[in-house]
Amino acid sequence: MNAKSAPDEATEGSGGVRSARRALEIVSLLSECSPSLTTKEAVEQTGLPRTTVLRLLDTLEGAGLLWATENNRYIAGPSLLRWGAMANNAWQIPITTRQAMRELADKSGETVSIYVRHDIHRVCIAAEQGTQALRHVARVGSEQPLWAGAPARVLLSGASPSLLRRVAARAKGLDDGAETLAKWRDEAEDLGYALTHGEREDGLSVIAVPVRNHAHAVIASISLAGPTTRFVDERISDYHQGLAAVAAQLEEDGFANSPWLGS
Amino acid sequence: MNAKSAPDEATEGSGGVRSARRALEIVSLLSECSPSLTTKEAVEQTGLPRTTVLRLLDTLEGAGLLWATENNRYIAGPSLLRWGAMANNAWQIPITTRQAMRELADKSGETVSIYVRHDIHRVCIAAEQGTQALRHVARVGSEQPLWAGAPARVLLSGASPSLLRRVAARAKGLDDGAETLAKWRDEAEDLGYALTHGEREDGLSVIAVPVRNHAHAVIASISLAGPTTRFVDERISDYHQGLAAVAAQLEEDGFANSPWLGS
Repeated sequence: MNAKSAPDEATEGSGGVRSARRALEIVSLLSECSPSLTTKEAVEQTGLPRTTVLRLLDTLEGAGLLWATENNRYIAGPSLLRWGAMANNAWQIPITTRQAMRELADKSGETVSIYVRHDIHRVCIAAEQGTQALRHVARVGSEQPLWAGAPARVLLSGASPSLLRRVAARAKGLDDGAETLAKWRDEAEDLGYALTHGEREDGLSVIAVPVRNHAHAVIASISLAGPTTRFVDERISDYHQGLAAVAAQLEEDGFANSPWLGS
Repeated sequence: MNAKSAPDEATEGSGGVRSARRALEIVSLLSECSPSLTTKEAVEQTGLPRTTVLRLLDTLEGAGLLWATENNRYIAGPSLLRWGAMANNAWQIPITTRQAMRELADKSGETVSIYVRHDIHRVCIAAEQGTQALRHVARVGSEQPLWAGAPARVLLSGASPSLLRRVAARAKGLDDGAETLAKWRDEAEDLGYALTHGEREDGLSVIAVPVRNHAHAVIASISLAGPTTRFVDERISDYHQGLAAVAAQLEEDGFANSPWLGS
């Protein structure tokens, strides 16, 4: 194939990569709330020309990432079943850590989540739901901003000034964005945890602790989240201890088997 | 964005779509057997120039589909967790059908799978594993060819001559490929089921029945698969009846809620 691919290279530059990015953006338009998509919606939501959208939808359908239903809508395709299973495998939390998460969720009644940093976002890779009727619902695979919430403060550990600026550029209503983020990050490092009230969502409180690799770098954050009314001072110390125990369990369990925890 | 996108369109033609396709091909290199990938492996397996592969890997990593580990390998990224969950949702089998599948797997001891046609492939969208030590293991989301196996014969119902030719072009050792496929398809339509022994895999037997929509078109296939030594004549009639009951259950359950079953 090499003889054939040399001339392709010229057309494969930023335009080609942009095209790949756009195709992925179209799949990302699907969500739990809008699990299907029409061509018209894809055109409106991407702002791309209809001909471009049609070509990309066709490519995505051919690859099995989207599936055209009989009523002219696109849904998540069956190839994503396999990719999803692979991702579940790659990001599987060791069973003992999973049990520790479940016990903490049962004991505290609040939802326990694990986040990792991905560029200027954080992604939820695991969650054990709390037991109370009013509770935080964490969606595995969902992206949250890095400028808000206790897990963000923990995950900013070791962030370069340029990363802080890029994160701050997305933050709304944050004066001196990058400096504020650096201050929050430093506070979290000093305390060993971060605690926020209503930062990302009104009435939602979150406490988060770091998970570190052998080189002591923060690679994940474990958090408890629930309504602010239940996050009273006398419970915070218990929450912190509970989270620290889960983090210690993950640090002990995870390094051998999980590629994402690094070496 | 429209003002900006008009000039893009020229560069978004076949080159752009090819680029998107190539990006998806790279993700497809990941499998249960090789859950991680180096740049070198991606170059070797795609035959693309290294610069192209690097750009595509970068795009895929940026979108969260791939995740760069600390030992220079790429694994399935956390965004796929969310996409996988969406696909699970879209392709969820109604609980009563799922129970019927489970009961048949328990009663027969063999693995029950549902396949749908996707272009010249068939994709497993659900499976209930058999109970015996030696059993067929069906992988949800995996693609199989349409030129082999009982589910293929069922799913070829209504296939156009050009589709038959495209499927046959991939078949190895099939004389008069398209004609043979048409004959097998017709036999399955007459019988109401298809039965194959060792067609795709030596020693593996499969019996499959169709699932039809309101317009009587075949939209899926339900099959039982196991070692040929256990697929003796006196059991085939029981297997057929068991499968027909599951198919009837899915036809009854599925049409209201599942977009993939069509209207």
